[in-house]
Formats: sequence, C-alpha cells, structure tokens
Amino acid sequence: MAEPLRLADLGEWGLIKRLGAYAPPGQFDDDGALISPDRDRNLVVTTDLLVEGIHFSDATMGPEDLGWRAAAANLSDLAAMGCNQVVGLTVGLAAPAETPWAWVEGVYTGLGQALARYGGELLGGDCSGGQQRLLAITALGRLNPARPIRRRDGRPGDLLVSSGAHGLSRLGLALLQGELEPLASAELQERAITAHRRPRPRLDGLAALVASQPPGEPWRVAGMDSSDGLGQAVAAIANRSQCQAVLERSQLPLAAAMADLPQAEPWCLGGGEDFELVLALAPAWAEALVEQLEGAQVIGRLEPAQASEVSGSDARPLRWADGTALTLADAAGFSHFH
Amino acid sequence: MAEPLRLADLGEWGLIKRLGAYAPPGQFDDDGALISPDRDRNLVVTTDLLVEGIHFSDATMGPEDLGWRAAAANLSDLAAMGCNQVVGLTVGLAAPAETPWAWVEGVYTGLGQALARYGGELLGGDCSGGQQRLLAITALGRLNPARPIRRRDGRPGDLLVSSGAHGLSRLGLALLQGELEPLASAELQERAITAHRRPRPRLDGLAALVASQPPGEPWRVAGMDSSDGLGQAVAAIANRSQCQAVLERSQLPLAAAMADLPQAEPWCLGGGEDFELVLALAPAWAEALVEQLEGAQVIGRLEPAQASEVSGSDARPLRWADGTALTLADAAGFSHFH
Repeated sequence: MAEPLRLADLGEWGLIKRLGAYAPPGQFDDDGALISPDRDRNLVVTTDLLVEGIHFSDATMGPEDLGWRAAAANLSDLAAMGCNQVVGLTVGLAAPAETPWAWVEGVYTGLGQALARYGGELLGGDCSGGQQRLLAITALGRLNPARPIRRRDGRPGDLLVSSGAHGLSRLGLALLQGELEPLASAELQERAITAHRRPRPRLDGLAALVASQPPGEPWRVAGMDSSDGLGQAVAAIANRSQCQAVLERSQLPLAAAMADLPQAEPWCLGGGEDFELVLALAPAWAEALVEQLEGAQVIGRLEPAQASEVSGSDARPLRWADGTALTLADAAGFSHFH
Repeated sequence: MAEPLRLADLGEWGLIKRLGAYAPPGQFDDDGALISPDRDRNLVVTTDLLVEGIHFSDATMGPEDLGWRAAAANLSDLAAMGCNQVVGLTVGLAAPAETPWAWVEGVYTGLGQALARYGGELLGGDCSGGQQRLLAITALGRLNPARPIRRRDGRPGDLLVSSGAHGLSRLGLALLQGELEPLASAELQERAITAHRRPRPRLDGLAALVASQPPGEPWRVAGMDSSDGLGQAVAAIANRSQCQAVLERSQLPLAAAMADLPQAEPWCLGGGEDFELVLALAPAWAEALVEQLEGAQVIGRLEPAQASEVSGSDARPLRWADGTALTLADAAGFSHFH
C-alpha cells in the first residue's frame, strides 16, 4: 500500500495551492484577499501564523519585538495589496499554561506600538492553551479608493522596482543566531538587528506610488511584498503575469553597508523578511516613483515569457540581464513543514 | 521572590479581560467586534482558535466534522452579533509535517460544506508546521442594515429567550468519549452525536428575530450564543446589562429526549457548545419571537440588579425564580489553560 501523502511531501506552497481549490478562483494568488461582493471591493483581509521555533524564538526576539513584527508582517501584506488604511487586526494566541503573563503583555504591547504607528485597532481575538506559543493574526485594511495591487497585473515592458534595500533582516538573524561573529561595525550590527526585529511595513511606499502615478496613466500595478525573499517576489510577479523577469546584477538593491559580505547577494535575493514592496510598473511611472521614494530603485524589467517557462507551476521565470540563469537556491520560500 | 504570574493563574477569562485593555473600550465585550469607523459599523469580525487535544481530537471527530464545526462556531458568533450575511472566513492551519494531506482535505471539505450551507467564501489564510494541529478561524459578516446584538443591551423587565434546546452536544461528547454507555435509544444516541459534530449556527433564528420585531418597537436586543454554556451566556448578558437574571427551573430548555438523564439539568445549563442564541428582549417581542421560531422558548427574565451583585467582575447575578441560588459549577466557562 502506498504511504499516504503528508504535508511534508507537499511543502507550504504545494499545500497552499491545494487549499486554493476551496476558494473562488484567484483568491489565494496574492498577499491578501479582496472581499467580494463588489461593494466591498475595497476591503482587504490577510492572515498570518507565527509559530514558536519556526517563525520566532526567545533566542532572537523578545515579546515586544515579536508583537511589533507580527503586526508589521500583516500590515506589509495590506500595503502590498494597495491598502492605504489599516482597519485593525484580530489576534489568536495559543500558549502553554505556564507561559508568564509578562510575555503576553509584551507581545500585545508590541502589537499596540505598531498599530499606534501605522493606524488601526485591536479588533478582538481568542486565546487558548497549547503545547507551543503561536500567534494567528488577521489584518483588515482598505483600498481607498479601490486601487488594488495584484501579482498578476504585470506586462512585458514594465520596470521592476524595489522600495528599498534587501538582506539586512537576514544579516540580523544571522547575528542573533550566532551564525556570524559580531560585526566590526557596531552601527551595522545594530541596524541589521533592528531590521530583523522591527521591520517597517511600507505603507509610505504606497503613498509615494499613488503620488507618482503619471497623469493619464491608468491604475495598473503588479506587486507583492518581499517577506519571502526578493527573488521569490519577482518570480511570483513574473509567473502570475505570464512574463519573464530580467534582473540587472549591478542594480541589486543590496543594503550598502553589507555589500562587502560574501552573503550580500544571496541574502539580498533570498534572505527574506525585508518587507519591502516589489512592483512592476510602466516605465514612466517606475521612474517617477524612484524619483519620489528615497531608497527605491529599478532592479530589472518584465519581458515576454518564453513558452516553456510558464507551463509548469514551478517554473521560475527569472534570469540575469546577461543571460545567465538565476537560481533561487536560497530563496525557494520557507518550508515550514520539516 | 514572587513567582511570575502565569496564564494558568489568570484563566481564559482573566486573560481576555487583560487583553481587552489593548483594544478600544467595549471591543472585547461581545462574540465579535463591530468595525469602526462609523461607516463600517455593519461589518463584524470574530476569531476562534481550535487546538487539538483541547477543542478537538481524532477520538471524537473526523476532519470533515471538525471543519464544519470550526466554521459553524464562527458563524454562530456572527449570528450572535446580529449578522444576517456571512462574508467568509480565513483559516490559519498549523500541523506537524507528518500530518496526512487527507486530514487537511477533510477539514477544508467540512469548512466548505458549512460555507455552502450558510453563505460566504473561503477568503484566504496561512499554513505552517507546528507540534500540534491547530485551526485559527476569522469570520467576517455583515449586519444589513445595522442592527447589532450586544450583551450589554438588556434591561430589567426583558424576557430571556433561548432559540433551542441545550445539553445534546454535551451528551454527544460524553458518548463519544465513552463517559456514558451507549444509550438505549439509538435515535437519541445519533441525535446527540450529530449535535456535537455538526452544530448549526442559528442564522435562521436571527431572521425570525427580525421578522418578529413588533411595529414601533425600537431595535434593542441583548444576546450572545451559548457556545460556552447556557448559564454562562445568561450570566454574561445579565452582568453586562447590570441586571440580575432569574431563570424558571420548569422552563429550562432541556432537550426533551434526554430529560430523564441525571445529567440533563447540569448539561443543559453548563454543557456548552449548543450554539443556540440566548436573547433578552422586551416581553412583546420575546413572545412574538417564540411564536415564530420553532423550538424557541422563554426561560426567564431580567430584573434590576442588587447592588452587591454587579460590583465584582466575577459576580454571577443568576438565580432561580424560587429564590434559590443557581451555581454554575459545571458552567464556569472552559478553562483552556491547565
């Protein structure tokens, strides 16, 4: 008898793909979901799980940082869908009975700090015992007016824009986990750890995106956030838009201060958890945005897909501008089932 | 040095009370949250965690029943807030890597069955590995028009109405857990197990409530669902409404078929998970509702509170009509931190 198929065999993406079959077509394609019916098209909902030992640990992050980060990750998903207003979030908290109240208090303090900074309220939630600490956050936001950002809206000729540098969060994690020796530069050390513990959702990048829309240019913005890695975000946009993404190696958005580290390029492409916006825009708009948003830069472009590269769901239509293949060995997403 | 305060010391209600301090005043008082700002006052969000070993186990429920029940519990919260439209739900799923895909498939099939029956869509979600199977469900619904049900809206003189019988779900659980011998009546055995595995959110009760509103009577409905027990629901309404609840022992909504069991009364009051609506209404409205909604009955009334009984947060202002005290030993809510 064949072994039953396990979640470990599917991996996170394989599982999400199967689960998407239970939702309306396209519903699972983006960082969040636009609510139907039509009159609610400007309401967005997104859900994230954070599990101790997988997404966080006491070794790398105190409870206030965890709360901030949990909120920021969800608000980043809202920004990546085009929301310019945070309605709020609900929090499901599971934790063993012996968990100190002070830990929970810290988590909610951090959540509250993020909401105070970016808007929105704690809307409610639930709590329960459990073997493992776990946070399940659902965030609600609004597109106001309805100007969504979807992965599938890219077209050949679009320029790819990153709202900021990548790799610092992964560097911070490496330092916190003792994977690297402390850096010579205390300032870089501090910045990297802060990038990991206190990421900023780029709601400001969204404001710049709206402000830089050229007159007469219709609203058409493809994008997502780079929480699972810059390369993975570019690949997902290209895939969903049935295009090929071409990245300029010289224009990778490396965090300048870490450019000398051997890990700079892989961590820029695949480190993950930088929570920047990755967008595909008509060239005039892309250039206007980069002009307007400090730290943003053009990193490549979308080209017509080669037929073979959009056929398979696992196709990664991504290459360097010089024609060499771009492998995402370090950026194949986070497999949380291992 | 004093031991640090743990979640086990607070209990679920103590914890929820503390967490409510991070939300706007009153936000944590009901089964769900009405979204502000004002123009969204008809949108409701509610979140539930279901943890293996605490809220469900393979011994009592297959995955399809679990999925149905998880959705039904959330839709019951929406009904208890006054929603007459289900928008949909998001699902956070944590499970060990060795979990069979067939189990997940069953859960989503059951969720889908409930959505197909009651309306709404699977809006999205997240999944992750974890030591323990866990579902975090967030449901969205609408009051259409805005006619909320809140625990705090009861007044002295209101009649208390239960939308249906109580105790069957607890009986079903007892049978499934082997706590009781199989019943002589196969029909009752089957009904009790179905009540436990396939509870019905009383969205139909809400429709009857709207239809039975007497002409000229303003919308003022206090209520909640009885997921944590009938007695607990009545006590919460009385507490929030600063009233005393008086229950008629002869009018307890016992499931008729189990009236001979010695556990009938405690399980009716405290068994929990019956997912009926418990409402406090002006007498004419209560009588019109009972007329209209099969199985609904008046179970008691709200009276002015005695000063001492609303002072403490743990006051349970609940008594029998003959004046004897009504203790909720079996219905003190579910402590999930033990």
